[in-house]
Parts: sequence; C-alpha cells; structure tokens
Amino acid sequence: MQTRRAILRAAAEAFDEYGYAGASINLILKRAGLTTGALYFHFDSKEDLAHAVMNAQPDLIVPRLQSQGLQRLVDITLLWSHMLQVDPLLRAAVRLTGEQASMGTRDATPYQSWVMIMSECLRDAQDANELQAGVSPDELGEFVTEACTGMQMFSAVASGRDDLSERTMRMWRLLLPGVAVPAIVARTEVSHDRLKLLVG
Amino acid sequence: MQTRRAILRAAAEAFDEYGYAGASINLILKRAGLTTGALYFHFDSKEDLAHAVMNAQPDLIVPRLQSQGLQRLVDITLLWSHMLQVDPLLRAAVRLTGEQASMGTRDATPYQSWVMIMSECLRDAQDANELQAGVSPDELGEFVTEACTGMQMFSAVASGRDDLSERTMRMWRLLLPGVAVPAIVARTEVSHDRLKLLVG
Repeated sequence: MQTRRAILRAAAEAFDEYGYAGASINLILKRAGLTTGALYFHFDSKEDLAHAVMNAQPDLIVPRLQSQGLQRLVDITLLWSHMLQVDPLLRAAVRLTGEQASMGTRDATPYQSWVMIMSECLRDAQDANELQAGVSPDELGEFVTEACTGMQMFSAVASGRDDLSERTMRMWRLLLPGVAVPAIVARTEVSHDRLKLLVG
Repeated sequence: MQTRRAILRAAAEAFDEYGYAGASINLILKRAGLTTGALYFHFDSKEDLAHAVMNAQPDLIVPRLQSQGLQRLVDITLLWSHMLQVDPLLRAAVRLTGEQASMGTRDATPYQSWVMIMSECLRDAQDANELQAGVSPDELGEFVTEACTGMQMFSAVASGRDDLSERTMRMWRLLLPGVAVPAIVARTEVSHDRLKLLVG
C-alpha cells in the first residue's frame, strides 16, 4: 500500500501543477522515484491513475471528524475548504474532476461520493429533528456538493483559494435558516474558531 | 460587428468541442470561413478570443427578461439552465471559464459579471422588501453564481446537462425559504411552466 500511496501522491503533485495532459507518466515516475513496472503493477494507465486521484477525496477529510448531523456536514465543508489550500492530492482531485472534458471522460463518481457522505450526515440530522419539514437529505446533500464545487472554482481564480473558508461560512449563513430548525441554526458552529479546532 | 460575431461563434463551437488547447486558430478560421487578417483585426490572439467568449455569457440571457427582483434572478438561472443545453457559445464560455488552469490564466471577470447582475436583482428585491432581514444582496449574488457553476459541472458529467433545469429548481426550493420573506417564497414561480414561458 505504501508504494501505491507514493504513486498517488506523486501523480497528484504532477496533475495539480500541469493538469492531466501536461503530466506525463515519466514525470510521475521520476517524482515517485519508481520504475514503470511498479506503476503498472498498481495502475493500468494514466487515466486509471487520474480516476484513483479523483476518487481519493473524502478519505482525506471524513476520518478526522467526531461530530454528528448538521454540525458534521458543516465540519466536513470547513475542513475541506482548509485542506484544499494545503493538500496537493485534494487539489489535484478537484482539478481533474473539473477538467474531465479534456480527458475525454465523464465520471460522476467523485461528486456522488460526496453526495453519499453528506446525505448520510443529513439523514442523521433528520432523525435528530434538526431539519425543517420537507427538506430532503438527498437533495440537500447534492446541492451542497454542487455549491462547494462552484465555490472552490470561483475562489481559485479570485484569490488562489485564500478566501475559500470565508465563502464556505457564508454558504452556511445563507443556507442554514432555510433548511434547519431555529434551535439548530442558533447552535451550529460556523466560524474560524471551529475551523481551528478541526485543523487541530 | 457581424464579422466579430461570426468569429466568436466559430471559436465557441471549436472551444466547446475541443477545449482551449485542442481548438487551433486554423480550425476556427476554417469554421468561420475567414482569413487570418480578418481574425487579427478583431482579436489579438487565441487567448484574447477565449476571454471574449468567456465574457459573452450574460448578454445571451439577460436582455430577454422582463421580470423584477427575486423573480428576475430566478428567471435568469432558469433561462441559463436551458440555454446551456442549446447554445454552443454559452457552453464554450462555461467550459473555458472552468479550464483556466490549462490556459495558464486566472480571470475572475466571467464570475464577477454574473455576481453584478444577480446582486442588482437582489438590491431591487431588497428595496421591494422581498428579502429577509440580514440577507446581503452581494453575498447572495456571489453564492448563487457559485452554486450555478457547480450545478452545471455535476450535471454535465451526470446527465450531459439534461437535468440542469431540475437542479436549478431544486436550488431555489432549498434556498428561497431562508432568504426571502414568506409572501415572496409563496409567490415566486420556479417551475417547468415558468421556464417554458421564458424560452417562448
């Protein structure tokens, strides 16, 4: 598993910097300090490697969190907004997911994995009576996934993602009052202090 | 202006199909049936042409609408969700905006133009007491721009954008109750019938 992870990291750094077309297999091997054989033992092709990078996203965020329900969903997005600034693997995953037209592929899995994770938090939130009547966990999970996708794109060109955590907090200020019951709107922590606590 | 528009259309078709790197100046000239001289009279470079395509977005949508305030903002997003499926110029603009890393540029103008247009609708909405207290027209305009960006990306890989209008209506179902006063939530039309009326 260590070799596989080293290849993923090296590929992510190359994809993050040069995009899919610009990152050659040779460049990736050189960065990982590995032979062609080692790479093809773990991945069938550059495309296969790109899909593995794209689908590594949630594992980088979710295991670090303890909270439940809506607070957990808020925490996922806050931690994601920070990690995207510091982790090349997450950045490469996001870049490749958005540039699929250039790769000639159409893979909705990276989005759908986020929707599944978010919807699960929201079903817990629904069971704990945190959501307003009529709010569907699946619909809201899908919408938050979309909003995060667009936030990071705008933020990337506007500020090199420096303001992504700010944008994430603003999303929750606008969205929470329409989807959560008032007691939960009041109790849910969406702040820089919360983010500091999560980053640890 | 007719030549300029013909070049923009031809470039958009090429960018929409092949992306920025894949669409050569020669291909664009061939499609437009024009000489190199005619192109360079209107545009300095392929990059200049790409920026013109990116920034043509709002002009394709906004002049067609009569409504005011929040209904106008809803109408902009509904019509946009439809036009993106049928207009190669809008599709190319959106593709280029999202693939700027590959072009080596970072231009927030295409996003900022949408924010300006949306915030203007929302200031009208605020003046007409349509918004809840504490909702900032600028913040909401920025968030709706981001959400639309992410919706179309997810929709592109999930359904080739067939479900983009559905996703747009779902955004408003989730967002309106938290940002608009109850009478406006009840009155604002977000439906397939409304979209049909706008498409005409």
